[in-house]
Amino acid sequence: MIGSHIDTVATAGAFDGPLGVLGALEVIRTLNDGGIETERPIEAVCFTEEEGSRFGTDMLGSAVAAGRISLDDAYSLVDSQGNSLGDELTRTGFAGPERELLEPPFAYVECHIEQGPVLANAGADIGVVTGVQGISWQALAVHGRAAHAGATPTELRLDAGVAASAVVTRLCEMVSSNRYGDLRATVGRIAVEPNLVNVVPAKAELTVDMRNPDDDLMIRAEHDLSEFLTELVARQPGLEIHSRRMAKTTYVPFDVTVRRIIASVADEQGLTHAELLSGAGHDAQEMASICPTAMVFIPGEYGGISHSPREYSSPEACERGISVLAGVVLRLAAMCPSSIGQP
Amino acid sequence: MIGSHIDTVATAGAFDGPLGVLGALEVIRTLNDGGIETERPIEAVCFTEEEGSRFGTDMLGSAVAAGRISLDDAYSLVDSQGNSLGDELTRTGFAGPERELLEPPFAYVECHIEQGPVLANAGADIGVVTGVQGISWQALAVHGRAAHAGATPTELRLDAGVAASAVVTRLCEMVSSNRYGDLRATVGRIAVEPNLVNVVPAKAELTVDMRNPDDDLMIRAEHDLSEFLTELVARQPGLEIHSRRMAKTTYVPFDVTVRRIIASVADEQGLTHAELLSGAGHDAQEMASICPTAMVFIPGEYGGISHSPREYSSPEACERGISVLAGVVLRLAAMCPSSIGQP
Repeated sequence: MIGSHIDTVATAGAFDGPLGVLGALEVIRTLNDGGIETERPIEAVCFTEEEGSRFGTDMLGSAVAAGRISLDDAYSLVDSQGNSLGDELTRTGFAGPERELLEPPFAYVECHIEQGPVLANAGADIGVVTGVQGISWQALAVHGRAAHAGATPTELRLDAGVAASAVVTRLCEMVSSNRYGDLRATVGRIAVEPNLVNVVPAKAELTVDMRNPDDDLMIRAEHDLSEFLTELVARQPGLEIHSRRMAKTTYVPFDVTVRRIIASVADEQGLTHAELLSGAGHDAQEMASICPTAMVFIPGEYGGISHSPREYSSPEACERGISVLAGVVLRLAAMCPSSIGQP
Repeated sequence: MIGSHIDTVATAGAFDGPLGVLGALEVIRTLNDGGIETERPIEAVCFTEEEGSRFGTDMLGSAVAAGRISLDDAYSLVDSQGNSLGDELTRTGFAGPERELLEPPFAYVECHIEQGPVLANAGADIGVVTGVQGISWQALAVHGRAAHAGATPTELRLDAGVAASAVVTRLCEMVSSNRYGDLRATVGRIAVEPNLVNVVPAKAELTVDMRNPDDDLMIRAEHDLSEFLTELVARQPGLEIHSRRMAKTTYVPFDVTVRRIIASVADEQGLTHAELLSGAGHDAQEMASICPTAMVFIPGEYGGISHSPREYSSPEACERGISVLAGVVLRLAAMCPSSIGQP
């Protein structure tokens, strides 16, 4: 099984581009063109809503396919317009009749742009991904009190926007402290109401995206953020902050045998390679719970910038990644079962 | 001339309610019902877009009527949907053929809810407004760089949302310092792009509303905020912050004679009164540039909360305000010209 994802429903989240699915199709097309038959069948898969940008839960399709999230729970998720995933899949014709749970395949491999600067800095053609760092997403809703910007003394305000900014500032302090290891934190969404120039914000909504390769330090970061929110509320009676968990995954290590095959195929093809941890979440981390899994990364230009219109990998870099993917898939499709770890 | 404003175009800004215009009409209706004829004619006026919530410039109608803003400049202002005031006035049938500049009247009085806690705390029925504090509005646009929330190392980010939060936090520090007198500062609008949970914000837009009764200290606050923005940009090469002035008014003192008449009428009617400065902007401050002007305030409930759905003044408080307004208008309509200061 060659992994990829394409966001058929979550068009708002289609940042990663079609490298995965096109790569998988290219591998199969090449094998067909060459009349190459494998011991084991090869399948290309597309998972929906990997980014989670529309329905708020990332790796949604693969999490359902791997059994971590139930189909009913997934269907009931709603987007910002109030449309449910279930209704939208029906409307767009993607609600098929097949069983949603995947039969565990022999192995799973996914090719992806790195979305970071590690490979470019190391001058490596290919990344052998050792695992995926833990991800914690929560949505915070701050309830203050609307008030007149000119007539309301500062000490009588419950400014939801100020509280939201305090959260952002605190997250920056947490990241730059040494208490949480390689913590990354991002507030990607901020919205205030009523959002008028001369009205103290009554409400603020924000999201907190935290990443950490160390599960214990992630728990510490979540705990300390929660403590900070409690203090913030205690300091200003009347202020309320509600937190809702959007997503949470722990550190996922990838299969050592599949990683070794990736490195070996890259060597065969004369490509330099480096091991690295994935900063981003991927469908592969869901597949890793049901079968031996690893990922092939290729470098991005401009410091590996991603989730940006400037995201770019050269055609040559893409070709090298797909070429390694093909070699790895051929090896896996020919291996005897006992030579690879079972989950 | 009895002042009032009603936001016929800027419905989004219609927070202040119709006390002014209904009060003015009630005074004229009462005089007509009683067959009372005055020496001087009495006019009720409504100004458009006093809040500035839709077209971004407050006191817009009165500023045009008093000659501070040209009709062409006003017509060319656009709302967040890109509609211009000129087009919207035509569309709604409010683009009348009359000359926009007012002939300076003998005097101008406006009745308004205080929108603050001073009168309630002082236990006063009526507020005699001494003037309006200076107002400074600016719009800030922060340009950072979109990036992947998981894969982008913190030191390589240009996070526009973090910069926006730093501005909010700095304004709070400025207010709580003793350097700027009675400065009030509000960030009422904050919006980030692309506004997705796992994308570092590429852009942030926010508004800064500052109020100060001391013009020199307001200039100091504006200067220091500007310095802070320069530092913020210097610290992170690539980050850009553009500032656009939305509105700026200096401290406006009200006419001493009109204020004295308000206090005297309140005394006559057995009402307690207190002098106070207006924290909010009002059309009266534009009228003050062309004729003797003052304002009558009435207390609001719940600590004088305003620009909030909880804003409320009792019918009795409103009646007392309109009753004083009527008394003041009758006196002004009968006064000989030499007994009142000319602008």
